[in-house]
Amino acid sequence: MNDTVSAPNTPRGKIMLVGLGPGSNAHLTARARAAIAEADTIIGYVTYIRLVADLVVGKEVIKKSMTEELDRAIEAFDRARQGKKVALVSSGDAGVYGMAGPTFEVLFQAGWTPDSDIEVEIIPGASALNTCAALVGAPLTHDFCAISLSDLLTPWPTIARRLDAVAYSDFVVALYNPKSGRRTRQIVEAQRLFLRHRRPDTPVAIVKSAYRPKQRIEFTTLDKMAESDIGMLSTVLIGNSNTFIRHGLMVTPRGYRNKYDVESGATHDGEKAGRSLSTGLDGWLAGLHASGHSTAELAREHRLPEDYIAALLAEPLAADDTQTDEIEA
Amino acid sequence: MNDTVSAPNTPRGKIMLVGLGPGSNAHLTARARAAIAEADTIIGYVTYIRLVADLVVGKEVIKKSMTEELDRAIEAFDRARQGKKVALVSSGDAGVYGMAGPTFEVLFQAGWTPDSDIEVEIIPGASALNTCAALVGAPLTHDFCAISLSDLLTPWPTIARRLDAVAYSDFVVALYNPKSGRRTRQIVEAQRLFLRHRRPDTPVAIVKSAYRPKQRIEFTTLDKMAESDIGMLSTVLIGNSNTFIRHGLMVTPRGYRNKYDVESGATHDGEKAGRSLSTGLDGWLAGLHASGHSTAELAREHRLPEDYIAALLAEPLAADDTQTDEIEA
Repeated sequence: MNDTVSAPNTPRGKIMLVGLGPGSNAHLTARARAAIAEADTIIGYVTYIRLVADLVVGKEVIKKSMTEELDRAIEAFDRARQGKKVALVSSGDAGVYGMAGPTFEVLFQAGWTPDSDIEVEIIPGASALNTCAALVGAPLTHDFCAISLSDLLTPWPTIARRLDAVAYSDFVVALYNPKSGRRTRQIVEAQRLFLRHRRPDTPVAIVKSAYRPKQRIEFTTLDKMAESDIGMLSTVLIGNSNTFIRHGLMVTPRGYRNKYDVESGATHDGEKAGRSLSTGLDGWLAGLHASGHSTAELAREHRLPEDYIAALLAEPLAADDTQTDEIEA
Repeated sequence: MNDTVSAPNTPRGKIMLVGLGPGSNAHLTARARAAIAEADTIIGYVTYIRLVADLVVGKEVIKKSMTEELDRAIEAFDRARQGKKVALVSSGDAGVYGMAGPTFEVLFQAGWTPDSDIEVEIIPGASALNTCAALVGAPLTHDFCAISLSDLLTPWPTIARRLDAVAYSDFVVALYNPKSGRRTRQIVEAQRLFLRHRRPDTPVAIVKSAYRPKQRIEFTTLDKMAESDIGMLSTVLIGNSNTFIRHGLMVTPRGYRNKYDVESGATHDGEKAGRSLSTGLDGWLAGLHASGHSTAELAREHRLPEDYIAALLAEPLAADDTQTDEIEA
């Protein structure tokens, strides 16, 4: 299998999938910069190449257009088979909706294996999720998700089901590819689905061109999200039910108020630093068993599936662990 | 309000919330490195400080223990009020379950505003999500989420509801804080909730100490996840229903197969490069209206809420946009 991938006596080729982060030099990692320097050939969407124009002088540069991700992967494979070192660049993180997936699909299709003559390295970077969050405050302090509103490769029911599920279960949500010239309605549907579960005044941040000259940040609320200025270069961040905006900063609490009195720093009655909440798994299970309520009532009260509640009640309570405390994160 | 935060004539203090990424020097951004160099004082959990020991020589270094996030924020505020520059360091990204949220909560509590004498900057970094993904292949090529299994500040029903929702709607899921000496059962419950919706052979990757000397990667399946070697330094990645493991690499497809024939690269009948799928929003809506099925039947078929289907059917179909194509991402 190895011999069919590269010609004999060719030096070992390499594909480096490089996450550029937001694209400014300051936010490149040392490894990302070194990978670009090491490469003979740079391949990427024309906008991303422009972000690192000063680093690619003297190299073969292949700029691709939209809808050509598979082409970029195929070109990278072709150069690497000739023994070249190729940097396939993406903004943000190469793994998040990026080139890493398509590249492996192309490589596997061609019979490549990791022990063949082509080495593959993925160099992580901060995704739009992280860079936009850093600009608006601290929205990602609790459970969060990313959903792409692009239905170019994904059926709409799949996307809608995900939007509804995370709105219901109160995640912080980052919408990638929220809108384009052609796709204007998906953001309207996202708002509709969210309003089934969330307050209309849920904070929303819209960040365009993070850390670039045309950077723009707008705060709004869920009920006005769809009418806001959103484009191809925007990331939309929807807060959870505890997220607030104060002094122009969007913050999602981690939950210290569940355990501590904010003024004094003391723990509430029944709570303990370094230990699970009284409504953490063990305490909650004990409460479930002691409640005397039916599985149907408990399922409604806790908004959990009835069969899950039934399975928990069918098992005896376990003894507590007695090990060391841990970090609250 | 400004005068109560710092003494008059004090230089402007600064708090820099620095994401160290996985912690190796190669994966620090230039800005992260510069921020540490700029700081008079470095504060962080002892393990994170150790990751940048060579960069903090000659500076005041305050190492904190677990469950002391609020203390770290309070110390940072205290130094900044004296006009010092403080780097509050976190592994990964400072915004993801990190120090950014607690810091703003402490600052707001003390009456700080962004135009006061203390400047705050958040420096993004690649989160464990991204760095672990980069080591195992390309799992994050489609919608994903992060859930912390720590119930130290969050009630268990909230966590369980989120686990069930994302298992149902087929996200790729990263579990942070999956297990500790004391918290051993939460990962068992996560597996139980996931098995309600997902195949037992769903691929799972467990990454410990990414990019550090004791790095360890294990692949397993959902039905064996809870019995695997998982600890405080581990991140667990659960694939979606299309994720596969081949040649030791975990890959989530982006969906090219929905549109293209893999062998020839040609689009399937009825599909078009650069355009929404035939089952994208517009095409799916048209099919909904044309189906003649009841809202209940359609809700069951597409696994979407019945009231949402009803709302869509109550609206007339809109005309298509006729604008330019876009990138498939």
